[in-house]
Amino acid sequence: MATLKPRTLSGFMELLPAPQVQMERMMEILRKTYSLYGFTPLDTPIIESSEVLLAKGGGETEKQIYRFQKGDSDLSLRFDLTVPLAKYVAIHYGELSFPFRRYQIGKVYRGERAQRGRFREFYQADIDIIGDGKLDILNEAEIPAIIYKTFSTLGLRRFQIRVNNRKILNGFYAMQGLSERAGDIMRTVDKLDKIGAEKVGVLLTEDCGLSAEQAAEILKFIAITGANAEVLSALEGYRGRNEIFDAGLDELTAVTRYLAAFGVPEENFAVDLTIARGLDYYTGTVYETTMLDHPEIGSICSGGRYDNLAEYYIDKQLPGVGISIGLTRLFYVLGEQGMLNDALNTAPADVLVLPMTQDLGPAIAAATALREQGIRTQIYGEQKKFKAKMSYADKLGIPYVIFLGEDEIAAGKCSVKTLATGEQVTLTVEEAAAKIRAGLQSGGTVIVEK
Amino acid sequence: MATLKPRTLSGFMELLPAPQVQMERMMEILRKTYSLYGFTPLDTPIIESSEVLLAKGGGETEKQIYRFQKGDSDLSLRFDLTVPLAKYVAIHYGELSFPFRRYQIGKVYRGERAQRGRFREFYQADIDIIGDGKLDILNEAEIPAIIYKTFSTLGLRRFQIRVNNRKILNGFYAMQGLSERAGDIMRTVDKLDKIGAEKVGVLLTEDCGLSAEQAAEILKFIAITGANAEVLSALEGYRGRNEIFDAGLDELTAVTRYLAAFGVPEENFAVDLTIARGLDYYTGTVYETTMLDHPEIGSICSGGRYDNLAEYYIDKQLPGVGISIGLTRLFYVLGEQGMLNDALNTAPADVLVLPMTQDLGPAIAAATALREQGIRTQIYGEQKKFKAKMSYADKLGIPYVIFLGEDEIAAGKCSVKTLATGEQVTLTVEEAAAKIRAGLQSGGTVIVEK
Repeated sequence: MATLKPRTLSGFMELLPAPQVQMERMMEILRKTYSLYGFTPLDTPIIESSEVLLAKGGGETEKQIYRFQKGDSDLSLRFDLTVPLAKYVAIHYGELSFPFRRYQIGKVYRGERAQRGRFREFYQADIDIIGDGKLDILNEAEIPAIIYKTFSTLGLRRFQIRVNNRKILNGFYAMQGLSERAGDIMRTVDKLDKIGAEKVGVLLTEDCGLSAEQAAEILKFIAITGANAEVLSALEGYRGRNEIFDAGLDELTAVTRYLAAFGVPEENFAVDLTIARGLDYYTGTVYETTMLDHPEIGSICSGGRYDNLAEYYIDKQLPGVGISIGLTRLFYVLGEQGMLNDALNTAPADVLVLPMTQDLGPAIAAATALREQGIRTQIYGEQKKFKAKMSYADKLGIPYVIFLGEDEIAAGKCSVKTLATGEQVTLTVEEAAAKIRAGLQSGGTVIVEK
Repeated sequence: MATLKPRTLSGFMELLPAPQVQMERMMEILRKTYSLYGFTPLDTPIIESSEVLLAKGGGETEKQIYRFQKGDSDLSLRFDLTVPLAKYVAIHYGELSFPFRRYQIGKVYRGERAQRGRFREFYQADIDIIGDGKLDILNEAEIPAIIYKTFSTLGLRRFQIRVNNRKILNGFYAMQGLSERAGDIMRTVDKLDKIGAEKVGVLLTEDCGLSAEQAAEILKFIAITGANAEVLSALEGYRGRNEIFDAGLDELTAVTRYLAAFGVPEENFAVDLTIARGLDYYTGTVYETTMLDHPEIGSICSGGRYDNLAEYYIDKQLPGVGISIGLTRLFYVLGEQGMLNDALNTAPADVLVLPMTQDLGPAIAAATALREQGIRTQIYGEQKKFKAKMSYADKLGIPYVIFLGEDEIAAGKCSVKTLATGEQVTLTVEEAAAKIRAGLQSGGTVIVEK
């Protein structure tokens, strides 16, 4: 007797088999793409000592952390993949070669208030490049190329990688004598998309205490838009007034110039002076990625350049640049938007072998031969009516069924039925394997745009 | 200033990049092999409600569980992948097709006493086939075929899948009138490998209270060894005395007969009457897998047939058969034994592009072209001496380096150096891609035997 109604915790994604296959396909594309760019996979523990994980202080995140006692140990579940990377690099500093390029796709935990589309356990897919002492600007230019390759391989076309440089912002605010208030100002400017320029202007004077003239300067600055060359050209107008600004402009210009060689189309990349990415962590180039048809979703891939990865753990200057994809949320959003390609095969097998005789030997031998050919094969051994067996293949979307009756076995052949068309042919097992392989078209990319 | 010495918790595996690549390769082979046999991937949460996870009662495991409070919730980390599967099947019963074949490779948590080679966070790689009401014996025969394919693809040759059937054991003990004491007896018989038959006999009489005659019967029974046909033939001598025994013998005979069709060599498979796999869970075929040259390691892949997966969650009879590989421990043991193939490429890239000019454009274009050809490529953009750049490639084991100087760029070519031989040739980027691809021999299997 069942004694308990089973449930999965709210905020924890648990997929049915077909969407899980789509998720796995996305992860495999991420692994392959990151590998193409020379990143090595890492896998750090999900549990860390709280003292280590929270060395920096968790800030906003701290309340959300899953923290608990086990024996004498104060433990926490990781809430991102960056702190564990910092720990890893600090511990293994002497054994790593720099620049150190790693990717990690793993689950992280944040006990957020449960709400639709918010997850407490979710995958992050991160890449970072960590330098020892220095890290060339080339790495900052390569990141958008990787973002572009990743999303275009997944099948997304209508997306834009927005890039800015924190030095340009910091330098600009310094020019205006507003360095002290830069935090408040950036938080206000961040509302531009939502409330528009006019209201931002009002808030800048009323809430941030700026003069009308200062607010106008800021509105003029963030109104610099257009093609990348135009934006850079407008920024040149500010050159010579602040060293930090000039350094940032040089970096942004270099990043933009290199991107053409990296093969990133102009329409997928935009210099955007409103991007800031928080207040204290990033120090150079910053990135956001938005879906052009779904701006309401916000950034699907963000990151930037930072000056010191592991200052709490090691007395080495370890500058880096990295990005993170919130994979669980992205997958959820794609599903909600109907953007996951249903035409892709999500069946557990390419072919179902149906034995039609008492002796299962010939069916087993056929399945073994098909598997040797790389064909994903199930044998249906249950004692069921023929209709139930076919319905099993049908429900799972297994595209081919092979029948092995007395006649086929005697002739050393098998009957291959293509479920989509109903076509049935008699072939040797080798011919069947070739037919099935040829028929397994990719069906396109994981993501489809309407 | 670093404020804290970073550390990774004891009992948690955290690999350096090269072994991590080997681990990833093992996981990919498991995923591919399981897929070949028609298993679909699942991914369940690591955290579950304690009430759900411990519905059955944890027994020995319960003390080891990572259990904690978060807000009002009593939560636990999963300690295996079977209980989450039971929960999953019970929740999604109406949406699944049966037999339901799933694989899951995921981390599980047990707070065992820390000791060398014991892990508190470790991967299990599980497959299970769940029937609805019934499940044909064919599935029990297929499991050793999958074990064989998995380990032989990994590169292991000297291993043996040992198979028994719990019905044979239960039937035999019933014949002897020893059903009540079967648990104690099996625990004693389990020591056979360690202490030998004579001492087992002594324990059977002294500790289990058997008569000398009964002990002799048991010793005679477990002494049935030899080729599979011989063992089965000897077992036939007991037929007709107990129904359960006869049913078990029929099953074991069917499993053994089908294995030849599945392509499992006789030397990798043995009927072994001493295998029992615990007391209450398994009800039919049971499996263990041992490395012939390392019996001290114990079973590297175990499992069996059970009658009811999810009785605590749902009033449906859901018989199943499954196996589990303790992947983290296996990887650790293989490393200790020097059985991980060092000849395999564990570099993060196949080629390192070294720009020799101020303008990085041509190097970026070359790297982009190589990546388009599927070659894993890094560009080395740091301002370092030539020797330091070469040393970077060398340390990471990147097999090829491409130089792009003024001459090469002017000629539309690049210089390709093979680090292992020192050979250097000037080629177009397309030719370089072809050369590198051809040179990237697989280097063999993940596991090598000495």
